[in-house]
Amino acid sequence: MTDGVNWLTAEEQHAWRSFVRLHERLIGRLAHLLQTESRLSATDYAVLVNLTDVPDGRRQYQDLARALEWEKSRMSHHITRMIGRGLVTREESPRDGRAAYAVITEAGREAIAAAAPLHVQAVRSLFLDHLTPAELRTLAEISVRVVEKLDENDA
Amino acid sequence: MTDGVNWLTAEEQHAWRSFVRLHERLIGRLAHLLQTESRLSATDYAVLVNLTDVPDGRRQYQDLARALEWEKSRMSHHITRMIGRGLVTREESPRDGRAAYAVITEAGREAIAAAAPLHVQAVRSLFLDHLTPAELRTLAEISVRVVEKLDENDA
Repeated sequence: MTDGVNWLTAEEQHAWRSFVRLHERLIGRLAHLLQTESRLSATDYAVLVNLTDVPDGRRQYQDLARALEWEKSRMSHHITRMIGRGLVTREESPRDGRAAYAVITEAGREAIAAAAPLHVQAVRSLFLDHLTPAELRTLAEISVRVVEKLDENDA
Repeated sequence: MTDGVNWLTAEEQHAWRSFVRLHERLIGRLAHLLQTESRLSATDYAVLVNLTDVPDGRRQYQDLARALEWEKSRMSHHITRMIGRGLVTREESPRDGRAAYAVITEAGREAIAAAAPLHVQAVRSLFLDHLTPAELRTLAEISVRVVEKLDENDA
């Protein structure tokens, strides 16, 4: 199985595995904190942040799915559950019956407003506080560059 | 809601969101490639890698769960599905009936051997190829440091 494969060097493997592990640990911890302290899942939080970022707090299901890199059907199921909890409502497009919008409710805005300070505090204490400004810049540069390459691959 | 909260600066928010997005995109793409090219899920792959890393390819369920940051019950369900597909078998501990081991099968070893070259090639072309050696070192340093802090928090 080794023929012609450019296996990772020890240093590359160490960096890759550490990076994957960092993300698993960090996101796992943040999700756990959110769930216990504010009863929002990480996905609820991501959807609500996405909706507060846009005018009128409304976005098409398919745009939300694309923004969060989710299958459309998975997003649709999740939003249905959030509707049941009163965090968002569903609106049909007057022009196109197939194009549904998710709209954040007042309760949704209250939930994200209550959760955001905790989330920011956790992002600081678990992550940002341990990076130098230069390291943070490097991380942002790497992230933007690799995502751009992934976007090019998609196009 | 803003009282006393040390909100993220624009630069911090950019770095944090870019980092989260990088990981979602990259892991999503790798998982999709694995699934379509080798019919292993990202979790199958992670479990099999974990088992090939240890002597005799056997590990307690709870050690696997800890290594992958999973709930024990979720790991147990997943291993049951992998047993059904012949990738691993289950062994009871002769000393402690409650301590189950997952053991990689010959088919499991063949599956990971077939998938690994593709995975390594994808990690290179989608990620490592776009980082300088200095950036890769910085990323590894950040990752190890933050995970150590998370471990300290746990202890």
